[in-house]
Amino acid sequence: MRIDGFTDHACLIVSGPDKEGIVAAVTALLARHGGNIVSLDQHSTDPIGGDFFQRVVFHREGLGESLGELEADLASTLEPLGMTWILRDVSIPKRMAILASIEDHCLLDLLWRHRRGSLPVEIPLVISNHTHTAEDVAAFGVPFVHVPSQKGQDKSESEAQILRHLAEADVDFVVLARYMQILSGDFLQKVGVPVINIHHSFLPAFIGANPYQKAKDRGVKLIGATAHYVTEDLDEGPIIEQDVVRVTHADSTPELRRRGADVERAVLSRAVLWHAQDRVIRSGNHTIVF
Amino acid sequence: MRIDGFTDHACLIVSGPDKEGIVAAVTALLARHGGNIVSLDQHSTDPIGGDFFQRVVFHREGLGESLGELEADLASTLEPLGMTWILRDVSIPKRMAILASIEDHCLLDLLWRHRRGSLPVEIPLVISNHTHTAEDVAAFGVPFVHVPSQKGQDKSESEAQILRHLAEADVDFVVLARYMQILSGDFLQKVGVPVINIHHSFLPAFIGANPYQKAKDRGVKLIGATAHYVTEDLDEGPIIEQDVVRVTHADSTPELRRRGADVERAVLSRAVLWHAQDRVIRSGNHTIVF
Amino acid sequence: MRIDGFTDHACLIVSGPDKEGIVAAVTALLARHGGNIVSLDQHSTDPIGGDFFQRVVFHREGLGESLGELEADLASTLEPLGMTWILRDVSIPKRMAILASIEDHCLLDLLWRHRRGSLPVEIPLVISNHTHTAEDVAAFGVPFVHVPSQKGQDKSESEAQILRHLAEADVDFVVLARYMQILSGDFLQKVGVPVINIHHSFLPAFIGANPYQKAKDRGVKLIGATAHYVTEDLDEGPIIEQDVVRVTHADSTPELRRRGADVERAVLSRAVLWHAQDRVIRSGNHTIVF
Amino acid sequence: MRIDGFTDHACLIVSGPDKEGIVAAVTALLARHGGNIVSLDQHSTDPIGGDFFQRVVFHREGLGESLGELEADLASTLEPLGMTWILRDVSIPKRMAILASIEDHCLLDLLWRHRRGSLPVEIPLVISNHTHTAEDVAAFGVPFVHVPSQKGQDKSESEAQILRHLAEADVDFVVLARYMQILSGDFLQKVGVPVINIHHSFLPAFIGANPYQKAKDRGVKLIGATAHYVTEDLDEGPIIEQDVVRVTHADSTPELRRRGADVERAVLSRAVLWHAQDRVIRSGNHTIVF
Repeated sequence: MRIDGFTDHACLIVSGPDKEGIVAAVTALLARHGGNIVSLDQHSTDPIGGDFFQRVVFHREGLGESLGELEADLASTLEPLGMTWILRDVSIPKRMAILASIEDHCLLDLLWRHRRGSLPVEIPLVISNHTHTAEDVAAFGVPFVHVPSQKGQDKSESEAQILRHLAEADVDFVVLARYMQILSGDFLQKVGVPVINIHHSFLPAFIGANPYQKAKDRGVKLIGATAHYVTEDLDEGPIIEQDVVRVTHADSTPELRRRGADVERAVLSRAVLWHAQDRVIRSGNHTIVF
Repeated sequence: MRIDGFTDHACLIVSGPDKEGIVAAVTALLARHGGNIVSLDQHSTDPIGGDFFQRVVFHREGLGESLGELEADLASTLEPLGMTWILRDVSIPKRMAILASIEDHCLLDLLWRHRRGSLPVEIPLVISNHTHTAEDVAAFGVPFVHVPSQKGQDKSESEAQILRHLAEADVDFVVLARYMQILSGDFLQKVGVPVINIHHSFLPAFIGANPYQKAKDRGVKLIGATAHYVTEDLDEGPIIEQDVVRVTHADSTPELRRRGADVERAVLSRAVLWHAQDRVIRSGNHTIVF
Repeated sequence: MRIDGFTDHACLIVSGPDKEGIVAAVTALLARHGGNIVSLDQHSTDPIGGDFFQRVVFHREGLGESLGELEADLASTLEPLGMTWILRDVSIPKRMAILASIEDHCLLDLLWRHRRGSLPVEIPLVISNHTHTAEDVAAFGVPFVHVPSQKGQDKSESEAQILRHLAEADVDFVVLARYMQILSGDFLQKVGVPVINIHHSFLPAFIGANPYQKAKDRGVKLIGATAHYVTEDLDEGPIIEQDVVRVTHADSTPELRRRGADVERAVLSRAVLWHAQDRVIRSGNHTIVF
Repeated sequence: MRIDGFTDHACLIVSGPDKEGIVAAVTALLARHGGNIVSLDQHSTDPIGGDFFQRVVFHREGLGESLGELEADLASTLEPLGMTWILRDVSIPKRMAILASIEDHCLLDLLWRHRRGSLPVEIPLVISNHTHTAEDVAAFGVPFVHVPSQKGQDKSESEAQILRHLAEADVDFVVLARYMQILSGDFLQKVGVPVINIHHSFLPAFIGANPYQKAKDRGVKLIGATAHYVTEDLDEGPIIEQDVVRVTHADSTPELRRRGADVERAVLSRAVLWHAQDRVIRSGNHTIVF
């Protein structure tokens, strides 16, 4: 599968210690290789002694044949400056696995956006610890795998199964679409690809279970959702996107859940889109979103 | 001073255990006394065994002379049902004191809205622990009092001074417009009127000092502000209003402060307006905002 | 089909010329019949000589048997005052038909919300002038009818077919979920039930065809969507709900379409929910939304 | 006056027909002159045959002495490519005149932000066709000039006066802070600097006078404000920024005005800030806002 309209387009991410002339060095290198810059974003945490981040999308006729030379030049130019870089052919979609549970709204929204052509990914696999979305997933032509997992039970076996499925499907990243199971540190170390979660609160408010009930108990006037990369610290990973919706005293906890579900799927879909487009760069516990 | 357009208008707040026929009882009582209902809001936490809250604004020709009879009837009708009630002449503005410190944005915004006729209150007093807004406050024709108070110092004397000033000014409520000093439990017990604070974060996220720095450190994508009634538990009182604004990785902490200041003054001014209009009812640690 | 949790609940809508004592008259009437008010909203365009609107939801044990007496009492009480009224058993869902075309986002969102239990309606019928959503609609267990209709062709036959299907399905209202065909005045007169449309702009900006292209051409910084009741004047009917999303110079027209689609389905679903709950009252070319 | 923190910083705006290597050419040129790029934004309406826009902020030790050489190099590099360019010393604030009328909210908000250090401009002049804000403006230490002008009267004399004052004050741009007088085409040709207006509606909805009344009449659920460059076509100039706020059927036209005033001042202040920072590039009737 190739993404329409992006033949011969590449995305280059450069990061490292900020220094004079780095933008010029990168753009000159691309010009030498016949690359025409389509978009360029850069950010420096501090021009003096800060960290530098750059995302460049460029077009280069016959990109495939030139990648080897380009990569060699990038390595010899950037690595002496202490910069790291990633070059990716934009026409090749990332492979995304979705882990889901009982709630279907985030799962179906991602599948529907994908079918509609709005998410430039391949979805080789949906894994759920429940079976009741199996038919819906099948209707989208996406393979569905049931791996039971319950709170309070030992998860080492189910996590091992999930890891096997992810490895077989050769995925580039994993999305927890309201998966509701806490993944072990061991799993996160072994999975080897980014894992994006949607948490149903405006983090850092209401970490952990039952955030809508906690929001009701606290009497907040806005509820929210947060998409973030998963780390071993529950709900503490780098935030990619957040949004909120207004609520009132008249909204019951189930009504908060209903309204929050719309925010969750919107926030998650934006985070997934941006990750798929290489717009999100992790920097410690922060993200730069270009 | 009287508020234009509200001659002979009263606001009745009723609350207590929900029971059948309570709305009919109240509206029939008002009809008997010649009151014409202008607006009516009600809320029940649960029709069976929940708490009931009602706000009625009504017009009654010659309200002043009829208040005594009306109050007697309300007492004999509602108190046997276990309901509490407050009746207020809407044309009489509440008296509001503002406590401020170095930052002027919330203070000046309230004074400006008041002068513009958008805040139905009287402002007999601004108290600040700094002097540098004295001239601005004077330009609005509002009395300014300087009561020094610094972090880390004993505040019993400054709090006692503030209490004396508030009592002399006979205020109905107090607004902390980025006052930045923590008021003691002793002060809150003695002040005897509601105290509204603006906290510069989206509570319950970032309780306490330096919320913008904490927001930057956590890497959130939205920052916010919260207006709430002050209780002895710091930043834990009933929330009246909240709002947020979008930020990015590119916004520095000073930029968060600058953008947050706009949210703070907007949120505080809405909370003050609603409190002044008797639209906010406290219920435990929640508010009902009609 | 009955809506869970609303057994013995009724919704009463009263409207007409505002006059003293009308709220008391209605609430006393309900109290006489053993109705316990669950929620009450009222609005007056002007206490003196304006129009009055009220929505009351009440619980009455054994509602079914009492409806006859209640209706007789409402007629004899309200009609002499020039008030009109509608009484509806809240537990009986309204029957909604959806008319759709090529774009599936609004259609599928409504079907999905309905299946999830978030839309208190029955959906006896989806009519489309294209066939390619037939399978998706079938997967939701909803009857699908194909009635071809193209721009520029005579539509009297297709409209007649649609009217027959709507009559057979005995629908209470019709939703145009990006139907994209202009319905004739003749159709609107004959259909006899409210028709809700979603227009893909922030009305009254960008009336008519291709609003996203017009928005791009004008260089707006926000795009929006509007749900409204359909009248013979294109895009001029009473507005039920609107919302917007921020865009930039970098967003192409297809990107505006993609982002706008999310706003459209959100706005339409809110409008449909509120209509289904009898929260929307038409008043001339305005709506009151309680 | 110099802007703190921007010594030796320059902003370069480049625009023209997009072509390969243009970003590299500009960044290499800056690198040759010892410029360290602090931020870089670029936009192309179409990589093939479209228009290209770039904004670069860079730091160059001893900027003042190097400007001549830099400008010569920019001219010889960019002009053969058909590109236009502007180079500005960021530490030198633009000179902004404000034209105002009776309403004070936009005027005072700009003055207050300026005093607070949030608007990097100098304000040598406020002109009003009314006198009642004279004292407030004076309190900010800003010169106030009264130039009477009324609807329906011949404005050639008042416009000539305004032009003389603007010329004497040597302003870089003019802000109409709810000035409410239509400036003639003759004035706009002679003024020779950009003129920014705040229109109190969400353009292109409600062009012309009394937009809040028109919004009330149409029954919209959101009201808005639009900041745009003024052209000879009333309310048709390039849009810089827009925003909206939610309203309901219960909001009267004066209430729309009150709530809209908050949106107006927020939108105008953002537009003015971005213009002052050279973030806004006009392209036909569009703006690129970096």
